[in-house]
Amino acid sequence: MTERIGQRTLRFDQAPRILSHAAAVGKKEGAGPLGARFDFVAPDDRMGQKSWELAESELQKTAIRTALQKGGLSRDDLDLVLAGDLLNQCTGSFLASMQSDVPYLGQYGACSTMAQGLALGACLLAGGAARRLLAAASSHFCSAERQYRFPLAYGGQRTPTAQWTATAAGAAVLAAGQPGQGAADGDLIITHALFGKMVEMGVTDANNMGAAMAPAAYDTLSTLLADLGAQPRDFDCIVTGDLGHVGADILLTLLREDGIDLSPVYSDCGSLLFGEKQDAHAGGSGCGCSAAVLCGPLLRDMHAGKIRRLVFAGTGAMMSPTSVQQGQPIAGICHAVVIERSGA
Amino acid sequence: MTERIGQRTLRFDQAPRILSHAAAVGKKEGAGPLGARFDFVAPDDRMGQKSWELAESELQKTAIRTALQKGGLSRDDLDLVLAGDLLNQCTGSFLASMQSDVPYLGQYGACSTMAQGLALGACLLAGGAARRLLAAASSHFCSAERQYRFPLAYGGQRTPTAQWTATAAGAAVLAAGQPGQGAADGDLIITHALFGKMVEMGVTDANNMGAAMAPAAYDTLSTLLADLGAQPRDFDCIVTGDLGHVGADILLTLLREDGIDLSPVYSDCGSLLFGEKQDAHAGGSGCGCSAAVLCGPLLRDMHAGKIRRLVFAGTGAMMSPTSVQQGQPIAGICHAVVIERSGA
Repeated sequence: MTERIGQRTLRFDQAPRILSHAAAVGKKEGAGPLGARFDFVAPDDRMGQKSWELAESELQKTAIRTALQKGGLSRDDLDLVLAGDLLNQCTGSFLASMQSDVPYLGQYGACSTMAQGLALGACLLAGGAARRLLAAASSHFCSAERQYRFPLAYGGQRTPTAQWTATAAGAAVLAAGQPGQGAADGDLIITHALFGKMVEMGVTDANNMGAAMAPAAYDTLSTLLADLGAQPRDFDCIVTGDLGHVGADILLTLLREDGIDLSPVYSDCGSLLFGEKQDAHAGGSGCGCSAAVLCGPLLRDMHAGKIRRLVFAGTGAMMSPTSVQQGQPIAGICHAVVIERSGA
Repeated sequence: MTERIGQRTLRFDQAPRILSHAAAVGKKEGAGPLGARFDFVAPDDRMGQKSWELAESELQKTAIRTALQKGGLSRDDLDLVLAGDLLNQCTGSFLASMQSDVPYLGQYGACSTMAQGLALGACLLAGGAARRLLAAASSHFCSAERQYRFPLAYGGQRTPTAQWTATAAGAAVLAAGQPGQGAADGDLIITHALFGKMVEMGVTDANNMGAAMAPAAYDTLSTLLADLGAQPRDFDCIVTGDLGHVGADILLTLLREDGIDLSPVYSDCGSLLFGEKQDAHAGGSGCGCSAAVLCGPLLRDMHAGKIRRLVFAGTGAMMSPTSVQQGQPIAGICHAVVIERSGA
């Protein structure tokens, strides 16, 4: 069962476990500072497919397949897939799981989709609605760029606040905790979740997503810390995904005004993914960015004991090319899960 | 908690209640055979907005506001909104809830979205992850037509198997069952849920969604009946939403081959929505079709005692204009909930 703490934080009394996980990324992401710590780096972002949309789907499929393999599992072991991406109608995700013969629930949380899937999945497992499920998310620079911005061949200039949509996918298999049986030493468990509200502060610039998302991250992280009666230092790492450099600065400033200094434990998936010389401007973005950084480097660091208690706060910008063209504001959203490495 | 019965059916031991519900529809839908039984019929499908996307969002907002009002509730009473639609990035839904200050989880199940929200919502309530939540879905003929098919002014011919995207929205507020306390007489409760698999049988014609979705409805309904050890006659009504005339025929035929005669209790939301003279070809479709037919006429019939036990099986076609143009197959999906009127 799930218990409510404080205002909105959910605590799982039998914490769901992360059984296995995998990250698959494109060539540019593989050449970045985290490159060696992903499970798969595509030699070619086409992934052997005829279109960018199919390439994205193939990348998500690769992450799912690898996560299952690493856990010694097959698709038959899953009760449910929760997946989503940035493409219209979440094309990358439904194509990736179309032939899988596993119940499927499409999720749309923009770049927060991986966090949404993990938070929702943990609730379903804790409540007995599934025994084992998979959460996945993906994005692809080429499919996103032509859908959201300009034709690829156009070569449009990017603003300094623009983020670079990551060609990346992440997948994690979660399993229900066993009744009356604690997690084993070294198990990664999801202890808490918090579903985010849309927070809209008047941003209408689709090239400044960090500014649109930071207030939502502020709302979610403030609420989580208050509900838990915790300080940032109670965690080894609090990571947003993906505010980029611009949004991360805004988040730190907003929290500092409340007397909360997040900086000693803070990272952002969008800031981590690309190196300074990779011309990614304000950093990485896209559903796949936080999904791959979590399901690759961050969870690896947890297995290695380098991170024992992690807040993964996935951030998304609720907008569509149509809504932006029609002058509608862009709201941010941020869903969070607390992941712990159990035992000594 | 949630218990698994048979292969895939979920049973709720404290069945979540449907506290209130509302349906808002467009002019054509209001002029159809069910017109008098919706809560709101738009005098003008523009809904006073400058674009069709904003009109759809306003329609969903109207359904949500009306459902809350009918239940004597405010948005503050909700822990969560689960909503989705057919527009790119689910624009209609995120705009409808953007200023609501309620945690939001975007759902994408194509036309099955209302059933997905109800099934998922029931699991979250049964597991303690929320106390009260709202599920909503919408569609709009004009926003869908120009996104999926042709510019409105083009006046393209429609094939006989094509369905008419309904201008409609439905919303339902669900609440957790009380521990150790049965439902009161006349309460509507969700007793079971089943999450559907994508079923793909090689259909690639975006103007024949009924054929693409019927095999998924067959899979879900066969599994549900087998898991419950039930016959169609054990229910007063088994309704799909929305196979339309073509898909409904295929579903009945597929089940008949297994010796199951669904016809005495079977209806389809897409077939119910429009009259014969309304030129809707194979019937209604769109997330709003099944959402409005359920949250208007069907749940009203349950309150009136005309239907005591209902299977609501929402069907969707997993495709995007891009996936269809790239020659990818269209998979159907079907999520189901069992709704009962408790007491004598």
